[in-house]
Amino acid sequence: MGKVSDSTVSRLSMYYRSLLEFERKGDKIISSKDLAKTEELTPAQVRKDLSFFGSFGTRGLGYPVKELKERIAKILGLNRSWNVALVGVGNVGSALVSYKEFQKQGFNIKLLFDNDLRKINKNHKGVLVSDVKVLPEKLKKNKIEMVILAVPARAAQEIADLVVSAGVKSILNFAPVQIKVPHDVVLRSVNMATELEHLSFCLVNKDGMIES
Amino acid sequence: MGKVSDSTVSRLSMYYRSLLEFERKGDKIISSKDLAKTEELTPAQVRKDLSFFGSFGTRGLGYPVKELKERIAKILGLNRSWNVALVGVGNVGSALVSYKEFQKQGFNIKLLFDNDLRKINKNHKGVLVSDVKVLPEKLKKNKIEMVILAVPARAAQEIADLVVSAGVKSILNFAPVQIKVPHDVVLRSVNMATELEHLSFCLVNKDGMIES
Repeated sequence: MGKVSDSTVSRLSMYYRSLLEFERKGDKIISSKDLAKTEELTPAQVRKDLSFFGSFGTRGLGYPVKELKERIAKILGLNRSWNVALVGVGNVGSALVSYKEFQKQGFNIKLLFDNDLRKINKNHKGVLVSDVKVLPEKLKKNKIEMVILAVPARAAQEIADLVVSAGVKSILNFAPVQIKVPHDVVLRSVNMATELEHLSFCLVNKDGMIES
Repeated sequence: MGKVSDSTVSRLSMYYRSLLEFERKGDKIISSKDLAKTEELTPAQVRKDLSFFGSFGTRGLGYPVKELKERIAKILGLNRSWNVALVGVGNVGSALVSYKEFQKQGFNIKLLFDNDLRKINKNHKGVLVSDVKVLPEKLKKNKIEMVILAVPARAAQEIADLVVSAGVKSILNFAPVQIKVPHDVVLRSVNMATELEHLSFCLVNKDGMIES
């Protein structure tokens, strides 16, 4: 398998969602054109994305929906469940705990951590909140594979270091700060302000307000 | 100005944050190497990204921190404030209202909407929640420029259509569904499950579990 870009992985996630929808509607076979149309892509892009992972479908006949869905699920690791922990039960963290899509895709938030004594040892939406002090040992004991950081910017690096020390190899960071992890740890960051900046960038540039 | 990729815009957001940090530390001049180091990029990538927007800095002397920060702010539309409305005051919506980074960058959530009678006409974290029925007229009256959708998947397209009918040209969608908007409307989608799927993809493929 060659080097697969981030954009390809994002598009696989989209194809997977489209396939779930095609399946729900009862479609058995779809073309790369059908798949492209839903996402406003070209059929060539769809074929190129899928070609990274071997051969799918039959030329001229299209893709069997169920099989393609299952193969993409396997590629994305959605054919199994994952043990996830979340650190920081504030506004963002709390919203993530209730985010139904996670569980639907097999991402099970098993542990919650916080440093607020009012939250520790209490149940939050059905999950016990533990003291962040016992983070590494709890992560190991519960075989946690992914950690979501929803802590303030100032705490993010310190917590990330603890997570890494526990042997966890993947982190999803919602703290609005750049954190550093060793090369064998996968890090994704979501900064909602950055998303809004994409919008403002487009609005500003549409009006030709940029001078260079 | 040539065609600027999404990745370049995301990196501009990162440079902007790094520059704020350099400024806070009292640095006056930085090199493309300094900027690259913080983000784990190559200096060539930094120079290429900036070159889309004209000439910055002096060869061999580096970039003046304050000037570069201000120019990137202008490019991203962060040198002004934006009127934002948010639809769907559930878990995700509520977290976004409290998200301090938004206000810090000039994104002011001025209006909230919901269809839940228990929420309508009540204050939520200092902002009045209006009935989604009056969405288009309120958006127009308050000169809203961006709308954040934090509604369930099944409601997203319908609300997006209302937003578009009110003349709003940019939407940030948190509903876990693909929505369609006219070509002159900028749409960004954030799907948190997709982010976790990037992690699981990397974990699965690191172990060589993909068969093709």
